[in-house]
Amino acid sequence: MVLGVDVGGTKVAVAAVEGVEAAHAVEHPTVTVSADALLDGIEHAVREVIAEAGEPDAIGVGVPSQIEYETGMVETSVNIPLTGVPLREELGKRFGVPVFVDNDANCAALAEAHIVGEDHLVMLTLGTGVGGGVVIGGMTFRGAHGLGAELGHISVNPDGPACPGNCPNRGCLEAYCSGQALERDATELARDKPGSRLAAALDKDGRVDGRELVTAAEEGDSDAVLLMGRFARMLGVAIAGYVNVFQPERFVIGGGLSRASHLFLDRAVQEAAARALPALYRRVQISLAQGGPDAGVIGAGLLAEHEIRNTETATQAPTQGTA
Amino acid sequence: MVLGVDVGGTKVAVAAVEGVEAAHAVEHPTVTVSADALLDGIEHAVREVIAEAGEPDAIGVGVPSQIEYETGMVETSVNIPLTGVPLREELGKRFGVPVFVDNDANCAALAEAHIVGEDHLVMLTLGTGVGGGVVIGGMTFRGAHGLGAELGHISVNPDGPACPGNCPNRGCLEAYCSGQALERDATELARDKPGSRLAAALDKDGRVDGRELVTAAEEGDSDAVLLMGRFARMLGVAIAGYVNVFQPERFVIGGGLSRASHLFLDRAVQEAAARALPALYRRVQISLAQGGPDAGVIGAGLLAEHEIRNTETATQAPTQGTA
Repeated sequence: MVLGVDVGGTKVAVAAVEGVEAAHAVEHPTVTVSADALLDGIEHAVREVIAEAGEPDAIGVGVPSQIEYETGMVETSVNIPLTGVPLREELGKRFGVPVFVDNDANCAALAEAHIVGEDHLVMLTLGTGVGGGVVIGGMTFRGAHGLGAELGHISVNPDGPACPGNCPNRGCLEAYCSGQALERDATELARDKPGSRLAAALDKDGRVDGRELVTAAEEGDSDAVLLMGRFARMLGVAIAGYVNVFQPERFVIGGGLSRASHLFLDRAVQEAAARALPALYRRVQISLAQGGPDAGVIGAGLLAEHEIRNTETATQAPTQGTA
Repeated sequence: MVLGVDVGGTKVAVAAVEGVEAAHAVEHPTVTVSADALLDGIEHAVREVIAEAGEPDAIGVGVPSQIEYETGMVETSVNIPLTGVPLREELGKRFGVPVFVDNDANCAALAEAHIVGEDHLVMLTLGTGVGGGVVIGGMTFRGAHGLGAELGHISVNPDGPACPGNCPNRGCLEAYCSGQALERDATELARDKPGSRLAAALDKDGRVDGRELVTAAEEGDSDAVLLMGRFARMLGVAIAGYVNVFQPERFVIGGGLSRASHLFLDRAVQEAAARALPALYRRVQISLAQGGPDAGVIGAGLLAEHEIRNTETATQAPTQGTA
């Protein structure tokens, strides 16, 4: 039995995970005052689940951070205070069972691969930022030290806006297809057009919230529809590129913004279809994420389960693979 | 003992390959009148090497084509008449030993990984077009059916020029950083500026050859320098993106255009350094390909060697990997 832990910017979710099922789930607000307080909060939630589900064989943890995978050291973390924390070691000490720590988008992609039953899958998580996860041959792809698959940080326009994330690039996918980018665009447009529907949506801080933009687009406001059109086009450009690069069988769009997919997905798929190499595009299925709100926890649990299984196999057989 | 076969647009090279050494090498012009004639030409060259080196255990073949890897079926092939040819099967019949067929850029990347001793490597081959090869954990990455790693066909500018290759996209890396793109740009500029250095280089077909552009840039012609600057910038944009996506330990620039690297590489590396995620950029080394002109043959040989080794291992142990 393994536990999955999903550490988000606003909540920490923990559950016992078997296959793609989560049980004994608990959820607490993320404590962000300090790294120690956050670790205490995670420990508290994990102990709650252990009290119900029993002692796990391993714990998998997904965090919205760049992780050096082998050491479990957090390289950078924007919304939660974990930068420079040896998270795998710290949590391992607290629980006395093997702990594995990975980027949350990697966990989401692993969960999705298991849920839809595909071994070659690319996932974009569209939320405040843009996360990426890649599953190759059933295994999470991470690059040389676990920092790869940063799919939100490839430039789709070299002269585009500065990335709103913790990234020095311009015209990244995250600079177009994230909640932060939509709010930036909606706010700029509202300020430029005082009489507009979006200007009426400016809040007391002089910002237009992403939800206001979505509502305006749903109501057919032409400014909002235009912004969602650019979002969709850039998403399609990126999907085409990643189809050509990864040749996945499944391309998944997830994250909080995917709830507004009726405003962009068809257009994005059309754009991707027009741009991707035909032999590769023919072989990919593009869809919304099938996993529910517990997909992050399930992916973290699957991570722990994979690692335990591999440790067992590795003691029995030499390394191998396909050339 | 294995043979490596490198099928190019102009020549077919064959050699016996051991490790990263090629022996008994032969080279013949590529016969392009028909698929059968090309296959006959390949067979002839292979038999020449076998006469000297003896019967191989397997043959690896690199072709400038999209290959469905398991079947060895050629999906598309622009410069040589192999589209729709079941190349693996056809060559297997002729030689009676296992044959493995892969994209030539994949073979080049595999050779380079062995030559420099890196397990996580991304390679761009800049020639008439832009090829890509990715080695992950010492193994060639190909995507679900072997058609992936088309690194030349990711859009770095959605409104950029149409891809000069067999690709429906706009603003692809190949639309900026290929020999075809340079010739297109130099020709356009020459036609627009009748008195210019590049206009003087227009040939009888009204085109400026890539070599003329390189010479003009070396002589400091401002038009040519400007074009090479754009080439360098877009290459840097793409390098940054692929560093973020693959997190390789080594990023290699190869292909015929890399001979003009003094005109673009420093600028491209600067651009990449300014754009890539710092934690990932710190861990990558960017360099020119170390392999010589026989790298393609060596990579094809390594492919055959890997496949034989994996077949032997696979009969001894269950599948495994890292989660």
